Amino acid sequence: MRYVDTRIPSQNEDYSAWYHAVVKAGMIAKQSPVPGCQILEENGADLWKEIERQFDPMIRNLGYRNKSWPALIPMSIFMKEQDHIDGFSPELAMIPKLKGRELDDQLCLRPTSETVIYDDMAGVVQSAKDLPIKWNQWCDVWRVEMRTKLLLRTFQFSWHESHWAMERHDDALQHTLDALNKYKVFCQEVLAIPVIDGEKSERERFAGADKTFTIEARMPDGKALQAGTSHLMGKGFADAYGISFAGRDGEPCSPFTGSWGMSTRIMGAIVMTHSDDRGLVLPPRISPYQVVLMVVQDSQTQDCSAFQKKVQDIKQALEKSSARFTIDDTDERLGKKQFHWEKQGVPIRIVYGANEMQDGTVTLIRRDTGAKLVVAEHSLQEELQTLLIEIQKDLLSKASKRLSQETVSISTLKDFETAIESQENGFFSVGWCDEVEAELHLKERYGYTIRCYPLNPETSFSRCFLTGKPSKTQAIVAKAY
Amino acid sequence: MRYVDTRIPSQNEDYSAWYHAVVKAGMIAKQSPVPGCQILEENGADLWKEIERQFDPMIRNLGYRNKSWPALIPMSIFMKEQDHIDGFSPELAMIPKLKGRELDDQLCLRPTSETVIYDDMAGVVQSAKDLPIKWNQWCDVWRVEMRTKLLLRTFQFSWHESHWAMERHDDALQHTLDALNKYKVFCQEVLAIPVIDGEKSERERFAGADKTFTIEARMPDGKALQAGTSHLMGKGFADAYGISFAGRDGEPCSPFTGSWGMSTRIMGAIVMTHSDDRGLVLPPRISPYQVVLMVVQDSQTQDCSAFQKKVQDIKQALEKSSARFTIDDTDERLGKKQFHWEKQGVPIRIVYGANEMQDGTVTLIRRDTGAKLVVAEHSLQEELQTLLIEIQKDLLSKASKRLSQETVSISTLKDFETAIESQENGFFSVGWCDEVEAELHLKERYGYTIRCYPLNPETSFSRCFLTGKPSKTQAIVAKAY
Repeated sequence: MRYVDTRIPSQNEDYSAWYHAVVKAGMIAKQSPVPGCQILEENGADLWKEIERQFDPMIRNLGYRNKSWPALIPMSIFMKEQDHIDGFSPELAMIPKLKGRELDDQLCLRPTSETVIYDDMAGVVQSAKDLPIKWNQWCDVWRVEMRTKLLLRTFQFSWHESHWAMERHDDALQHTLDALNKYKVFCQEVLAIPVIDGEKSERERFAGADKTFTIEARMPDGKALQAGTSHLMGKGFADAYGISFAGRDGEPCSPFTGSWGMSTRIMGAIVMTHSDDRGLVLPPRISPYQVVLMVVQDSQTQDCSAFQKKVQDIKQALEKSSARFTIDDTDERLGKKQFHWEKQGVPIRIVYGANEMQDGTVTLIRRDTGAKLVVAEHSLQEELQTLLIEIQKDLLSKASKRLSQETVSISTLKDFETAIESQENGFFSVGWCDEVEAELHLKERYGYTIRCYPLNPETSFSRCFLTGKPSKTQAIVAKAY
Repeated sequence: MRYVDTRIPSQNEDYSAWYHAVVKAGMIAKQSPVPGCQILEENGADLWKEIERQFDPMIRNLGYRNKSWPALIPMSIFMKEQDHIDGFSPELAMIPKLKGRELDDQLCLRPTSETVIYDDMAGVVQSAKDLPIKWNQWCDVWRVEMRTKLLLRTFQFSWHESHWAMERHDDALQHTLDALNKYKVFCQEVLAIPVIDGEKSERERFAGADKTFTIEARMPDGKALQAGTSHLMGKGFADAYGISFAGRDGEPCSPFTGSWGMSTRIMGAIVMTHSDDRGLVLPPRISPYQVVLMVVQDSQTQDCSAFQKKVQDIKQALEKSSARFTIDDTDERLGKKQFHWEKQGVPIRIVYGANEMQDGTVTLIRRDTGAKLVVAEHSLQEELQTLLIEIQKDLLSKASKRLSQETVSISTLKDFETAIESQENGFFSVGWCDEVEAELHLKERYGYTIRCYPLNPETSFSRCFLTGKPSKTQAIVAKAY
């Protein structure tokens, strides 16, 4: 058993150092010797698998089936849509030759799979009966990245990408929003992360898309994290890739297409949203382990067969519960175990030693609050169930309160400048003129971006905070990961 | 709903055409526009996920945890072990530059992950307490391949690869065999594929390994398919990668390492072992869908509310059962549905139409035998359960009988030559001198290889069938995929 003995610096002191220490000590991820790439450690790999296990049925529920396409894409296929290639070219990793021979058609490592999937769709779609198409894949993608940050910005990352094609525009738009809603529900209910769902501005749209929708989460340092996106491509890609069928009037017709994706960067949002200065905190519904049983071995218990028998009973109670659990029954001292499992973010730690045996109790410790609960041994299973639900609820409510309290409405540029003087990373709700030049100015002058135009705006603004022109929409403005 | 209307050529007529048609019509895989790479279609992707879902717990049961390493490996790391680099060099795909800059340390797409994982282990292993290490990953790998064959031989494929490090040689050897045994159990019990477990000859060993063990399956055309391998590396890799700890005598000491892997090519074995001239046949325990309900919509049933109510009842019975099922309630005619779902290999098809409603029955059709069973509607759930178990058992027993009947014992070169004259792909049990020159001759002169030295030899031979020298071991000799 490998114990973590990393110290975590405080969040207020050095946020970035705190984040990296939590990720590493929590065995989520670490740097690899491959430039720009991370290694997902034991908890990170399990966390991602757990996300797949729980989100995949939500994708299928919208009528999708999984497929799997090659990671290499011939450039002749990649280059068919101009905006798309312009958007991704700087980030491509290329394979120029195989078996010593230069390739006429060089291969790139996919930064996303639209192009190879559209090529596939073109062969499959023959008539309106073949629509809708709804395909998903869980895979890795590569975007060359020099300024890396564990989980959030890496050369290689994992994600699900769902791709669809539909006959009618209204169905297509509705589906784009239905997909976005799955993310919102998943983030809030399973990951306990409150998000703002909205539309992206023109400058922030996916390369080649008509509309991009997003869910944005606010991190404790005030920066926004884009947690999932859903794109309506319009007909541009379908036309570029020759996806067509005989329409109702007998004329060749192309479908509307779209895609949506959520990646391992969501794990960065989980880490930041819930963790504290003692290390990782994971919400019960997604945590690889929900419970750890720490058996206290001391001179009194070590060779006591009655104690060992009791431990077996507790293990059996855990096995009967639906909780995902692990057992630490090494003979390390309790302090070391506490220190380790606290950093692993396990929602509930169980302490069982001589005291507990004597009292017929079990001690439960909540990771989120540190609260200790002594419960009767026979009610363990029931108590765990209740407590896991309570922790999940409390984590969401804490994060939601923070989001609403720390999203600041401002009306003028002066207010904005005052606000960012006192607090570097503000999270603002503003009136917005929806002009690209203003957006560029915001980015260049202040380092801030338009995160989204909320689908359900709560405040109304008459003027754009930046230009003073009439406001066309409400916007969320923040620095972003 | 997309119906498959591909005709399947007969197996006897053209085995290779039959195989490719079954794989494509069964929506398992198809060629992609990327040279040497396949697309896993809906059933193929689900089948692989189902293999992961069922095999992953068997890996964890041996004490493993999942991790995830980058797909790109710097050549400086890859090249540390000479036999390894010699073995894989011709198959590597290279990325020579990123962001327009030539890399000093070029990156290769991993053909296997030993090298980057050993580099990781070197950082983690500090003392004997850190052992054993048991890590697994489910991922893609790339080996440049020009002579491709769907599922069996592709440039990119998916697999699980498990890597371990241990202190003692006896534990290491035992673990190598325990891992192999997991494959054997999984293939036989879950995939209904009987296999021969054995050791590889020197020539067929993994590049850099001390010992390689394998499970070999016999395909209906007489060729062998290597279905999974387990390698004992010895200390060569650990020394090359600087994995060391303070031994019991205080001196620096390196562990024994090993790895084992099973890939998407196992799906080729599933397809060939069970399918027939009507298309794909899948064993119930691994089939993405175990049951399909085909609702017969005709003039009598279409607008009959009593019928629709009955269909709902049957759907509910399916939902209550633990079976993985799908429903085809389109208004296509039954013939088209039968033709389609037969090719998808679904173990049990349910027919429900006006006749069934009138009789209070449900008609079940076994994919493997074509047998029809009319059962009372109320006993559907129970009948399905029994039948799925029976089909699973029958498929294994049929394949086992074929393996034992068609593995031919031969003693002399003359017998061998006579046998391969009458039947191109023989599957032979022989006495073997265990000499590399003899092995090379066998390959060059006859195109046959030593598949393995069975762990549990059943026959004993005094002489090598090829050289006439004293037999050192029993061997299985065959052509291989």
